Amino acid sequence: MRPVIDRVYETVLYADDVRVTASFYADALGLRFVEEPDELAAAFRLPDGGMLLLFDPRLASRPGRRVPSHGATGSGHVAFGVEPGSLDSWKERLATSGIEVEQAVDWDGRGRSLYLRDPAGNSVELVDGDIWPA
Amino acid sequence: MRPVIDRVYETVLYADDVRVTASFYADALGLRFVEEPDELAAAFRLPDGGMLLLFDPRLASRPGRRVPSHGATGSGHVAFGVEPGSLDSWKERLATSGIEVEQAVDWDGRGRSLYLRDPAGNSVELVDGDIWPA
Repeated sequence: MRPVIDRVYETVLYADDVRVTASFYADALGLRFVEEPDELAAAFRLPDGGMLLLFDPRLASRPGRRVPSHGATGSGHVAFGVEPGSLDSWKERLATSGIEVEQAVDWDGRGRSLYLRDPAGNSVELVDGDIWPA
Repeated sequence: MRPVIDRVYETVLYADDVRVTASFYADALGLRFVEEPDELAAAFRLPDGGMLLLFDPRLASRPGRRVPSHGATGSGHVAFGVEPGSLDSWKERLATSGIEVEQAVDWDGRGRSLYLRDPAGNSVELVDGDIWPA
């Protein structure tokens, strides 16, 4: 039997200022820290058990860490699945936090998305529905 | 009630040659396409319903697409959860595919990881276990 992959366990975004960007994910989006942010990284646990990690690309790309180096610059992208029917509540929550919705997309009956930017310029999408082919 | 995020729905990596890197994820790692790769992107569905997307950062960062632009350069990172106990089988599978294991890490009884590189230089981790605090 060939071994198989079950899931994405860690999703990574990059930010020059990890602490500032981590605050956005904790406060504006409500993600839960499992390791408080430092200069290198922050780690969030999602309700389904998956992880979102933030890294400073300059520090994470240095050789000599315990793990292989990585580090990207420019705008990354992540999409989060939200509770069904919660996108209007999200609009209100984001407005209360002073976060601009960059774009809203209706996926032809399969779902809807709101797009925003984190403080590092990454494109963050909140998705209600399953918008890709099964 | 404040709306909540359930999960990461889309995880994104970047590759200058989407087709070549997509073949790696399909053939060497066994991920399942739900949209065949083109110059811009490829989309894989994971068994837990999550998505892995590959994008060419030059094309994805152009304005005027249906969705907000994004695109990062440099080495990204993703970790995949694998079936418990399957990491030795993964070593054999990777060796058969001619893929070098860059590093192996034992996480102090919480799990084990193998690290490799995709053709675009992204750091890919296969994790058996749950290596972060709950």
